[in-house]
Amino acid sequence: MAAIDAAQANLIVPVLVGPEEKIRAVAAQEDIDLAPYTIVPTEHSHAAADTAVAMARAGEVEALMKGSLQTSELISAAIARDVGIRTDRRMSHVSVMAVPSYPRPLFLTDTGINIAPDLGAKRDIIQNAIDLAYAVGIEQPKVAVLAALETVNAKMSATLDAAALAKMAERGQISGGIVDGPLAFDNAVSSDAARLKHITSPVAGQADILVMPDIETASMLAKQLGYLAGAQGAGIVLGSRVPIILPSRADTVLTRMASCALAVAVAHRRRSSMPL
Amino acid sequence: MAAIDAAQANLIVPVLVGPEEKIRAVAAQEDIDLAPYTIVPTEHSHAAADTAVAMARAGEVEALMKGSLQTSELISAAIARDVGIRTDRRMSHVSVMAVPSYPRPLFLTDTGINIAPDLGAKRDIIQNAIDLAYAVGIEQPKVAVLAALETVNAKMSATLDAAALAKMAERGQISGGIVDGPLAFDNAVSSDAARLKHITSPVAGQADILVMPDIETASMLAKQLGYLAGAQGAGIVLGSRVPIILPSRADTVLTRMASCALAVAVAHRRRSSMPL
Repeated sequence: MAAIDAAQANLIVPVLVGPEEKIRAVAAQEDIDLAPYTIVPTEHSHAAADTAVAMARAGEVEALMKGSLQTSELISAAIARDVGIRTDRRMSHVSVMAVPSYPRPLFLTDTGINIAPDLGAKRDIIQNAIDLAYAVGIEQPKVAVLAALETVNAKMSATLDAAALAKMAERGQISGGIVDGPLAFDNAVSSDAARLKHITSPVAGQADILVMPDIETASMLAKQLGYLAGAQGAGIVLGSRVPIILPSRADTVLTRMASCALAVAVAHRRRSSMPL
Repeated sequence: MAAIDAAQANLIVPVLVGPEEKIRAVAAQEDIDLAPYTIVPTEHSHAAADTAVAMARAGEVEALMKGSLQTSELISAAIARDVGIRTDRRMSHVSVMAVPSYPRPLFLTDTGINIAPDLGAKRDIIQNAIDLAYAVGIEQPKVAVLAALETVNAKMSATLDAAALAKMAERGQISGGIVDGPLAFDNAVSSDAARLKHITSPVAGQADILVMPDIETASMLAKQLGYLAGAQGAGIVLGSRVPIILPSRADTVLTRMASCALAVAVAHRRRSSMPL
């Protein structure tokens, strides 16, 4: 449904990869006419992942969207050495949220791939998010590396990583964004809170990108924004040769469509600036 | 101001402990009449912490509120062996939030003391929060132990701890509440999300208490609720002989008053059911 909805909105040209009988059965059940769409038949869902990844590698498709298979099946195929679509960049997931109480879109990362990223992984996670911000038209995004508080504390490794990442951006090891941290959540999104704490920072109070210490913080904050702050979101995996969309059963149609739009923006930027 | 505001609302009877000249200077500046209040003079702020803790230990005061000194000064005095007010229970901080989009108060913990609690500390953290829920009239509170996802995953220690804590509650090692976990944020607070994931749980969708894996998740979620979901909050430290209030400069008057009210509720319950 996510693929067909996006196709009918002229966002994407879908290629349906998987067991053909199952695809046709689902389409019949949902009253979808498959005539306009290409089907690439495979024997089972794992083969579908391998086939789709090979097509992405060959440049035949410019994004992947997970269908009815496990996320791990698709990601395993994507990161397979030699035949996958990994790059020298770590893959990571970015959620883009429209929050009614915040004046700009909030990019949260890593909301889905890396469980407890180390400093090197966090560098890539930030660079992926900055690249996505550019792809949707936000130049020099402001990146807040979050921790429980805004001061460096030797007992809280998230604050040490944040300080190191801010310096890496100053030294050009991360490019295209303004990175500061550690920042606590309040001083990242509220200028008043930053002022009260006497924080001088080009990022404080106006962050575009929130970098979370680990998957727990990222998952919980994204879900809390959706469930208690009325946010609408979209999400995408970056760091692979083509972006990957991982729809969840709980996603609204709007979330699925917006995720496709993110993938299209990334694909468009790659086509124009960094051909595979 | 927090103490005087609460006194004028007849919530508490304050005892002002600290350097008398400084206290009188601040009062004069803020146009406060100190005549109705007891002042216990000390030489400096560290001595104020020791003195106040000693008074709590002797039963002369039933709660402590941090004034103009470092949180660490007060907590160090509180946990000092032999002269402090520690119990066999780990101390922890609970934030109670009124969230417009959620139908009941949300208790978040540990939002201020334990950086990376282990299983034993998490047990105490949960018991402290359950005790606070009882003190404010919520019997058998529903406790969600949160992680990034609702399934047990050997690579995510938060999910393993959550499963263990749920079992500890079943075995009576935690009492007075219904504990379940791991739960992701969405299925803890949304029955729809829980249903979509086919989760059968007495806690899912209607959690009173959210137990966070570590201080980063706790701090960020509490602040996000305040800054982006329009929540009003209060907070208190439990697990010591008397509750401790740790006001922050960014707190509103409402937050400070509500924190005093929590301390009063806890003190009242102790007086009636578990005399020191």
